[in-house]
Amino acid sequence: MKIISAADYREELLNPKAVEERNEKLDESVLSIIAEVRKNGDKALFSYTEQFDKVKLQSLLVSEAEFAEARGLVSKEFLTAMEQAKENITSFHSEQKERSWFVNKENGVLLGQKVTPLERVGIYVPGGKAAYPSTVLMDALPAKIAGVPSITMTTPPQQNGKVNPHVLVAAELAGVDKVYKIGGAQAIAALAYGTETIEKVYKIVGPGNAFVARAKKWVYGDVAIDMIAGPSEICVVADDTCNTSYAAADLLSQAEHDEQASAICVVMNEQIGQEIQAETLKQLKQLERSEIAGKSIADNGRIVIASDFEEAYEIVNLLAPEHLQLMVANPMEAMNRVHNAGAIFLGNYSPEPLGDYFAGPNHTLPTNGTAAFASPLGVYDFIKKSSIISYSRDALLQAADSIATIANMEGLTAHAKSITIRKDDTK
Amino acid sequence: MKIISAADYREELLNPKAVEERNEKLDESVLSIIAEVRKNGDKALFSYTEQFDKVKLQSLLVSEAEFAEARGLVSKEFLTAMEQAKENITSFHSEQKERSWFVNKENGVLLGQKVTPLERVGIYVPGGKAAYPSTVLMDALPAKIAGVPSITMTTPPQQNGKVNPHVLVAAELAGVDKVYKIGGAQAIAALAYGTETIEKVYKIVGPGNAFVARAKKWVYGDVAIDMIAGPSEICVVADDTCNTSYAAADLLSQAEHDEQASAICVVMNEQIGQEIQAETLKQLKQLERSEIAGKSIADNGRIVIASDFEEAYEIVNLLAPEHLQLMVANPMEAMNRVHNAGAIFLGNYSPEPLGDYFAGPNHTLPTNGTAAFASPLGVYDFIKKSSIISYSRDALLQAADSIATIANMEGLTAHAKSITIRKDDTK
Repeated sequence: MKIISAADYREELLNPKAVEERNEKLDESVLSIIAEVRKNGDKALFSYTEQFDKVKLQSLLVSEAEFAEARGLVSKEFLTAMEQAKENITSFHSEQKERSWFVNKENGVLLGQKVTPLERVGIYVPGGKAAYPSTVLMDALPAKIAGVPSITMTTPPQQNGKVNPHVLVAAELAGVDKVYKIGGAQAIAALAYGTETIEKVYKIVGPGNAFVARAKKWVYGDVAIDMIAGPSEICVVADDTCNTSYAAADLLSQAEHDEQASAICVVMNEQIGQEIQAETLKQLKQLERSEIAGKSIADNGRIVIASDFEEAYEIVNLLAPEHLQLMVANPMEAMNRVHNAGAIFLGNYSPEPLGDYFAGPNHTLPTNGTAAFASPLGVYDFIKKSSIISYSRDALLQAADSIATIANMEGLTAHAKSITIRKDDTK
Repeated sequence: MKIISAADYREELLNPKAVEERNEKLDESVLSIIAEVRKNGDKALFSYTEQFDKVKLQSLLVSEAEFAEARGLVSKEFLTAMEQAKENITSFHSEQKERSWFVNKENGVLLGQKVTPLERVGIYVPGGKAAYPSTVLMDALPAKIAGVPSITMTTPPQQNGKVNPHVLVAAELAGVDKVYKIGGAQAIAALAYGTETIEKVYKIVGPGNAFVARAKKWVYGDVAIDMIAGPSEICVVADDTCNTSYAAADLLSQAEHDEQASAICVVMNEQIGQEIQAETLKQLKQLERSEIAGKSIADNGRIVIASDFEEAYEIVNLLAPEHLQLMVANPMEAMNRVHNAGAIFLGNYSPEPLGDYFAGPNHTLPTNGTAAFASPLGVYDFIKKSSIISYSRDALLQAADSIATIANMEGLTAHAKSITIRKDDTK
């Protein structure tokens, strides 16, 4: 975990390692999977599942019996924790609901926007060895609150042909309508274009591996997607009031995700930086996932020494971290200096994992600097707006000349005609 | 302009012509342009401008002298019309402003979302023979209202090395900060990654040709984009109260855009359908752009006969048109049946061109069925949200066990540790 100056870190951020512009091999296989699913539907899905997940399925759809079995396999503690999390997530996201609105103007003019939930959405939940029931709640509940009538989930089956019971229980708790056992690019293709069993959706959300991410990029435009997610990041701003062992634990919680994850700590006092560095390396040894976390800390961990608050927040805004912890004396005031961050955690008692599982705000956040232009997943991701325009005859006639002037200037004379035909009619 | 049954049209919509999955040749040239601009910056921009626009520029930036010249070249009528349009667009979009919010919960918990404008955005305005000053207002004003501090516009130069004066006047009126003379994929690359003169932006909006659209798809993820725009569509629902000559004029106003544009009319009375068909063909002959409009009407124009309102709106929702005109007796009531449409125009006196130029709602709308999941461009496109999480020590300790339960279940033990370290500390 390198200690570096703000100036050096700024250089690092402004000159990122070359972005891979194209991955020919990945594209080739992702595009061939998408084409195959569009052509052969379910048949392709069964065949890819056999090939990639090593399972010969009889049915893609998770049955009621499988849900019942799952309910019996999870602990009461887990269920209680998930129910509390659901309550908090629902409460927070309910604040994001938007309403249709309109304004009446003079002269019989009504303008506004109508808000409508998307009709069908798809949620991808990664599988394999790990299971992410928290992702199910975070992705499905906002859709539910938006009023989406049909929520389809896909997740790769385990090698026994089943879905992790915790994931199924979470799906039921979140009100997911149908769960299908399909993973990878083939799942994204099925959701985007539909097959005999799987109905096409209008938006696909959720994290996934490189195949899933690339498939999402390719289907983008034909359907909406939430984002193309990258590795996880945390940035901790720590002043002298920071509890350094807490800060270290929080940095490590992101580092354990994967080797590409980044844990960055910005301090204004080198002494604090050294304490956090030492504490991080000490706690690292005690972790179950110390190999992954250790590589992440070694490669991407940074203690950045800023000269003052101003420089510290300049670095934060340039980084645009997914998660930002403000472990400083006055975090509310500090927050005003933050322009770019996915989620902002205030004080010594708001560690990032609190947000991952429990507090209520969404854990699907913009990564890799995209917090400079993107928002956390929310209810607003599952609605769309239609503008409403209603003019009276008087109002239109009053506006007619101006409209025709602009239309004619743009050379679109049939546009002008559509206005003038109504004007001439009154002569 | 074919008259067909709703059943046949439904089949047409459900089985669209095969979507082009990949355009190797276009991708090859777009990707090489992007790579070249990333590598050689301004030098590449000058060279592409010479190659594609046939102009050897001295400077990419439009100078103050060029703005002054432009002001002298536009008519007073045009300026007045644009000023009125600006006022209406500003008034409508001001209703879309979102505020940061927070809620205080029991036990010292504060949650919310902070709204921040994007720091820099880029607007692409197509050039060539036509000029679209209305697009400048529609794309720049919402960014301005969102509070974006830096708005950069790019547009290809004309063969005389200048930018159309109407476009420049519009840019000044809308508060665009800088205008650069660059078009095509090279402009998108410059905005996405920056060059010596052009600062990188975080979101690129605006329509363009196939190169621009494809370049936007490729840079998507590194920056945000508004949408990948397709050809324009209009759908008119007409009952016996519809003025059929108005309806025909409105259908033609979309058809004149380009040969791929679609004009669809849904009627519940074949007689009305025949009248609109006859009137469309009659008015078509009088149009300046009758060749383009004629091809659009012949290829993509449809009069769809529905048996009743229910079937009519089923067709509308399946089509998810960019523009929808409800020329029916009770358009407000009819609007309730519409789930998917970019903009909805009510009654006989709300023709689509009114929305293109003047009424206030945005004319940058989801095309090609994407209104099923996308919204008109708005102030919401130029802001992003950061979630805020602030827990007191008491609140965290109370939640600690539940959080640790879920984290441990997911196998993320460093996540659990970040919580328990705070709990154990109090023992």
